[in-house]
Amino acid sequence: MNFISMRSMGVECIEEVLKRAKDFDKSVDFTNVLKNKILGALFFEPSTRTRFSFQTAMERLGGSVVGFSSAEGTSIKKGETLSDTVRIIAGYTDCIVLRHPKEGAAKLASEVSPVPVINAGDGSHDHPTQTLLDLYTIRKNLGEFDGLRIGICGDLRYGRTGRPLSIALSHWNVKLYYISPPQLSMDRGTVRFLKERGVDVTEVMRIEDVIKELDVLYMTRIQRERFPTEEEYLKFKGVYVINRDIMKMAKQEFILMHPLPRVDEIESEIDQDPRAKYFEQARNGIPVRMAILEKAIKE
Amino acid sequence: MNFISMRSMGVECIEEVLKRAKDFDKSVDFTNVLKNKILGALFFEPSTRTRFSFQTAMERLGGSVVGFSSAEGTSIKKGETLSDTVRIIAGYTDCIVLRHPKEGAAKLASEVSPVPVINAGDGSHDHPTQTLLDLYTIRKNLGEFDGLRIGICGDLRYGRTGRPLSIALSHWNVKLYYISPPQLSMDRGTVRFLKERGVDVTEVMRIEDVIKELDVLYMTRIQRERFPTEEEYLKFKGVYVINRDIMKMAKQEFILMHPLPRVDEIESEIDQDPRAKYFEQARNGIPVRMAILEKAIKE
Amino acid sequence: MNFISMRSMGVECIEEVLKRAKDFDKSVDFTNVLKNKILGALFFEPSTRTRFSFQTAMERLGGSVVGFSSAEGTSIKKGETLSDTVRIIAGYTDCIVLRHPKEGAAKLASEVSPVPVINAGDGSHDHPTQTLLDLYTIRKNLGEFDGLRIGICGDLRYGRTGRPLSIALSHWNVKLYYISPPQLSMDRGTVRFLKERGVDVTEVMRIEDVIKELDVLYMTRIQRERFPTEEEYLKFKGVYVINRDIMKMAKQEFILMHPLPRVDEIESEIDQDPRAKYFEQARNGIPVRMAILEKAIKE
Repeated sequence: MNFISMRSMGVECIEEVLKRAKDFDKSVDFTNVLKNKILGALFFEPSTRTRFSFQTAMERLGGSVVGFSSAEGTSIKKGETLSDTVRIIAGYTDCIVLRHPKEGAAKLASEVSPVPVINAGDGSHDHPTQTLLDLYTIRKNLGEFDGLRIGICGDLRYGRTGRPLSIALSHWNVKLYYISPPQLSMDRGTVRFLKERGVDVTEVMRIEDVIKELDVLYMTRIQRERFPTEEEYLKFKGVYVINRDIMKMAKQEFILMHPLPRVDEIESEIDQDPRAKYFEQARNGIPVRMAILEKAIKE
Repeated sequence: MNFISMRSMGVECIEEVLKRAKDFDKSVDFTNVLKNKILGALFFEPSTRTRFSFQTAMERLGGSVVGFSSAEGTSIKKGETLSDTVRIIAGYTDCIVLRHPKEGAAKLASEVSPVPVINAGDGSHDHPTQTLLDLYTIRKNLGEFDGLRIGICGDLRYGRTGRPLSIALSHWNVKLYYISPPQLSMDRGTVRFLKERGVDVTEVMRIEDVIKELDVLYMTRIQRERFPTEEEYLKFKGVYVINRDIMKMAKQEFILMHPLPRVDEIESEIDQDPRAKYFEQARNGIPVRMAILEKAIKE
Repeated sequence: MNFISMRSMGVECIEEVLKRAKDFDKSVDFTNVLKNKILGALFFEPSTRTRFSFQTAMERLGGSVVGFSSAEGTSIKKGETLSDTVRIIAGYTDCIVLRHPKEGAAKLASEVSPVPVINAGDGSHDHPTQTLLDLYTIRKNLGEFDGLRIGICGDLRYGRTGRPLSIALSHWNVKLYYISPPQLSMDRGTVRFLKERGVDVTEVMRIEDVIKELDVLYMTRIQRERFPTEEEYLKFKGVYVINRDIMKMAKQEFILMHPLPRVDEIESEIDQDPRAKYFEQARNGIPVRMAILEKAIKE
């Protein structure tokens, strides 16, 4: 089966992945699950975490990976279309994982590919495997989703993690707090969609306004190039920084997440705080992507 | 044994590869054939298909691959010679596969390497593993070579696939039709060689002139940089395009091939035509390269 | 355990690696030693030999490798710190091997990594796995170290191989001859350190002055960018070249080594001389790095 978007993924599928990931998290002895299977990894954009964790997940399941980590050194430079590249690599492999700068690239790929396609990020649109490991991290640390108050902070408009995470969480009874400058607020379509699904969405501009309420704060990077002037960028960059003062205001059972890489939105002194879960979150990418690969290839 | 050029490859060797590839095409259970063997993949030029299909072939035989996909990130940038690079990687591995922009690079490599060398393209000179998968595709679809009328269209002068395919086909009783602009016609030396071997070679400028006769049309890419002016390029680019009108003129048992990547010399609407075999052709690279790797390493 | 610097490595550890490497050198049947283990290879600088030989060593032990061969195509471009990259990749893998342009990078990595770290070169500071294979090559060819007279020639100041090799050799009773232009002489701190350990160090400017005495000559590359003017570079480049005349002056049991890549400091006609051991030296990287990986991961 394909993993293309959180909008099209049912809650049963999410639950199955989270459940199976728990098995993979407990033991490393699963090298027969995808023995002799080959994953084609097509990364048209830089990635460390996503690419390496897919590769590691595949190796831990007994499979192997062929692919590229940028469009350099491939036939794309010779003018080949995405469809043709996908069709050819699909002819060699048992599954495709695709990262691409254009929204909808994974869906297009899945339409021409004879083997399953996993979306590893298409522009700022979706990134379902990141969302699944985010959900896994929340549940592992806080138990059930119902009743949780979850803040998502940073670039909600162009970032690729906040939107699919919100959509996935709408399957449960959660309260969402969006924290961002107005220029980078969540698009109205998504907010409307969430409200129609019954999610309580609160939008604020300062972390301090809501930090005391939160069970989860999901930080994201703010990119310089989103702002018209350096001045405006620096204004917001300085505001969205997690330091000891912010952590003091948060609850004891609170968890701090970040899809990484971070630049300076979380100070390194916070790494020692037991509520800082971003490195564990990255590590959870392995069992969760093992579960996704197994499901993609075997179902 | 080495796989360097089609000129030096006997018909018995070709037949053995084609026969063994059929075994690999039928089953995927061959993971003990090259167990623990390591292939050194030295790609000094971009490649998607060739590199990935060698890697996939090696993995499906139970072996593994080390290597690079461009000269970037290697010691070549520090001024190392090709001979030294080959000797060192040969010291680590059981076989070398080499793509290099310079004609004769693979031959040079084979002279200094203690392990077998496979030429994965040396300039516009030769590309024997592509030719072997082309032959495999023709035989799989049309049976025996004797009596076939085979057109090769596009850049016959600088392209690296038409020349070795012609030379290989000269082992059988085929008729060749070369379709190209005069600037990109097959070099006279090769035409003479083929005629001496008894091949009937016809050279024309338009696909329409011969399409009705053909059992196979092998399209290749025409590259802008081969023409003195943009105007002249566009003139020929427009002429060598396979569309529905052309396909209507072709026979029912005809097959359309292309080494890929294509730019726009085959319209995408043709992909659905059962006579379009270029994606199957790419896929045939796996069993054929499995046969080549086995033969290279074990003989 | 970590492999960070030759200064911190005891002679027992060296001896264990050299002994175990001998086992790996004799047989290729060790694919269960690191079965299912994954090495994270973080190469922030170009490398052919080191990266490929680690990958080959890991494959020959039954493990596999994830990683990158340059900072391109990774999150470092997004502003991620080395610490964060190491922590994340360490979360996926069983061992980290790191090449980095900055001195001390490997030590820093070992402080934040939950898995062992192997230094594959940090600036011009250290390169312990190269030193171990250099030692292995000397012992394999000449037996015991005690009593040997070893010349090291070229860029002793900025080169990353001469310094750790000297420090390692100071565990035995050797005589060192440093041959370099004054601008590229070994730093005073290292010379003092060696003399305090009882090593007899002689510094000269011409190979001819000492070649007759030597059991080993270890050549290194001189890089253009170390000299203020092209003129001065060419002056020294011409002086430090091993040709037949030099080899005639050397002893019969003498060996010529080079970490490679070479540019033109050893003429290619010397490759046939049985005393030229640099290709064997490169090949010794496999068994030695197998021993290092086993020790790093299992102890």
